Amino acid sequence: MKKYSELTKEELQALKKELEAKYKEYQAKDLKLNMARGKPCVEQLNLSMGMMDVLGADSDLTCDDGTDCRNYGVLDGIKEAQELLADMMEVPSDQIIIYGNSSLNVMYDTIARSMTHGVMGSTPWSKLDKVKFLCPVPGYDRHFRITEYFGIEMINVPMTKDGPDMDMVEKLVASDESIKGIWCVPKYSNPQGYSYSDLTVRRFARLKPAAKDFRIYWDNAYTIHHLYDDKQDNLVEILAECKRAGNPDLVYKFASTSKISFPGSGIAALASSHNNLDDIKAQLTVQTIGHDKVNQLRHVRFFGDIHGMVEHMRLHADILRPKFEAVIEILKRELEGLEIGTWTEPKGGYFISFDSLEGCAKDIVAKCKKAGVVMTDAGATYPYGKDPQDSNIRIAPSYPPLSDLIVATELFTLCVKLSSVNKYLSKM
Amino acid sequence: MKKYSELTKEELQALKKELEAKYKEYQAKDLKLNMARGKPCVEQLNLSMGMMDVLGADSDLTCDDGTDCRNYGVLDGIKEAQELLADMMEVPSDQIIIYGNSSLNVMYDTIARSMTHGVMGSTPWSKLDKVKFLCPVPGYDRHFRITEYFGIEMINVPMTKDGPDMDMVEKLVASDESIKGIWCVPKYSNPQGYSYSDLTVRRFARLKPAAKDFRIYWDNAYTIHHLYDDKQDNLVEILAECKRAGNPDLVYKFASTSKISFPGSGIAALASSHNNLDDIKAQLTVQTIGHDKVNQLRHVRFFGDIHGMVEHMRLHADILRPKFEAVIEILKRELEGLEIGTWTEPKGGYFISFDSLEGCAKDIVAKCKKAGVVMTDAGATYPYGKDPQDSNIRIAPSYPPLSDLIVATELFTLCVKLSSVNKYLSKM
Repeated sequence: MKKYSELTKEELQALKKELEAKYKEYQAKDLKLNMARGKPCVEQLNLSMGMMDVLGADSDLTCDDGTDCRNYGVLDGIKEAQELLADMMEVPSDQIIIYGNSSLNVMYDTIARSMTHGVMGSTPWSKLDKVKFLCPVPGYDRHFRITEYFGIEMINVPMTKDGPDMDMVEKLVASDESIKGIWCVPKYSNPQGYSYSDLTVRRFARLKPAAKDFRIYWDNAYTIHHLYDDKQDNLVEILAECKRAGNPDLVYKFASTSKISFPGSGIAALASSHNNLDDIKAQLTVQTIGHDKVNQLRHVRFFGDIHGMVEHMRLHADILRPKFEAVIEILKRELEGLEIGTWTEPKGGYFISFDSLEGCAKDIVAKCKKAGVVMTDAGATYPYGKDPQDSNIRIAPSYPPLSDLIVATELFTLCVKLSSVNKYLSKM
Repeated sequence: MKKYSELTKEELQALKKELEAKYKEYQAKDLKLNMARGKPCVEQLNLSMGMMDVLGADSDLTCDDGTDCRNYGVLDGIKEAQELLADMMEVPSDQIIIYGNSSLNVMYDTIARSMTHGVMGSTPWSKLDKVKFLCPVPGYDRHFRITEYFGIEMINVPMTKDGPDMDMVEKLVASDESIKGIWCVPKYSNPQGYSYSDLTVRRFARLKPAAKDFRIYWDNAYTIHHLYDDKQDNLVEILAECKRAGNPDLVYKFASTSKISFPGSGIAALASSHNNLDDIKAQLTVQTIGHDKVNQLRHVRFFGDIHGMVEHMRLHADILRPKFEAVIEILKRELEGLEIGTWTEPKGGYFISFDSLEGCAKDIVAKCKKAGVVMTDAGATYPYGKDPQDSNIRIAPSYPPLSDLIVATELFTLCVKLSSVNKYLSKM
């Protein structure tokens, strides 16, 4: 195929006619498909049904240390769950707090606490004139919504294949005391599926922020969410690296089992230095008597240990891999060589990131919607929902059945072509 | 028995000797008993073990409306759980949000949101010079710790058998715009077990607060936690009463199943007006994707409906009633007529409140501890842990086995006597 940029007006007009005819065919199909969110599919949920059987009416719900999981107490999680999630998060089991069902809620709570009580004795952010966060873009919309909700100014930092532009990050945090944090999805990033290079992690651990209450918000959401056995990204562990760099308190590390067991019924955790954990526990003890220990025990009994969890993730991968490969195959087949879009080919996580020609993303997503395929809103991957190039689109292949996914992706590529043709024609 | 106030010095000295001898006998027993917290006992926990069996690996975890409880979504709770908890809380099922495992956490979150975002558009409390709360005393220590944590000034309001001193409440809220809330445990109050009279609830609903963002924090923790079938306190329902009084937005109502199913693994809820709920949901949608729906479904499948829940509470009552009655019987037997203490005789809830002679509570609790019986810290039932009379002690009869409870209560009465004798002697 010829690049679109080299097509004549007549060729473009002919192509447009052809594409529009195809688009009408899709519209006639009355599709109702959804590629908007990183939701596990039914087959993935079925993998964890055994979890419903590990605790029964005759079970002993007592921990090794004698704690009755059915009663009040244990602020930071039962030991067994701390060990399991510590292994998952690659941190010592005494540097972790087990929370409820949502790591997003833990992140929200971390920002909320900083607003009202500061960080390890610093001025509460609500008392400051200005608080800013660095946001690697494209990134996770729900991160950006939290900082937006609290009136925190967000500064875009471009992502590269090795992670955020660290020259920019280093410069900004060193020079501006109002910068209090940076949102990171360091492994199989949302939406690009990039993993931070060793050098990037090392540079993060060696940041010299002007603000003492600056923290790295390290959302390791996809820590064991590989698609392949033989091709896995590996991260330098940030807590240990911060300690080695003499910055032990620099990072909050978040994770959950939402995409391992059940989304909404998993367990979440925060790992950090003892100083940070003490600071957090001073709040936690006011906030609650403890989180759901029965569910913690359920996870421990179901997975057994980290090996059991890793084996479980291979089953997830077996379901997800064909979906990712199908999407990428169609993108290649339909778009390669046309120079009207680029896409990522992640080895894990939940998303594929697509970049269209500038100014086309909203139009492509709107066209998909009109033909019955819901994509993540264009712009959602940027703070305030504003993609300055209007080019990034997040593709979430996990939820639809493979057959639907194929149809949806084919329609998507058609919309990309149509939108691109229109763009070139409009410039003639 | 003669009143202690009428004993001569010699009689008191003789009595002291006798009591001290008995106290030494208790110390020799090497007791390790705990009456500090309102924790259900093992037999109560066993009542809900069937809950571990209602969902199995072969179960369909789908709601009536088709929601797959295993996946993400549903911000305010599955319909079935909303209906069950609405019946429990005596509110319409569209005026409720189902949360995670802890109503305390919901209350914390409500205050935290008001600090950073205000209430229905009001100035965030963190931007105000002064924020105050009314605290009926004695009251629930964990309420007071939340307001203390946020630097909110707490004003004591005396409790009566009919609820808080409403003359004082009405006067204060009408005259001081910095008063933003009042903590209430309206039924079987913590620690006295008093229930607000109809008139008290009506006066609450008709408050004319100077502050538009004043709310009543109505923690109906013991809504169906009766000890008797034939003697039950009944409350005028506050949401409906507020609506009738033309003050629909005046109240947040909290409850949970912590002392119905499993403490720490129950479900919590907040009920309020649609205006308040909209205000809350604007935060909630940033905070989380949703709470644990599988656990919501588990509760629905286990209890079936409110009748099932009420029947279940009769089983709790059968376990708790003998414990309450044993404590009260011993208090009567040992202390009646001596005029060295008064106590409440609740018909529900989790606590008995004891008032010693002024200045004796800390000493009594310390004496109990030295003999191996841990009571709630004296002062805990007051803001900042400061009981101005040093007389209130909260007795929590639920957790210890009956035989332990009897020993502990007997020791308690001995410590009351000893402390009272010392008080009278010190004045001679």
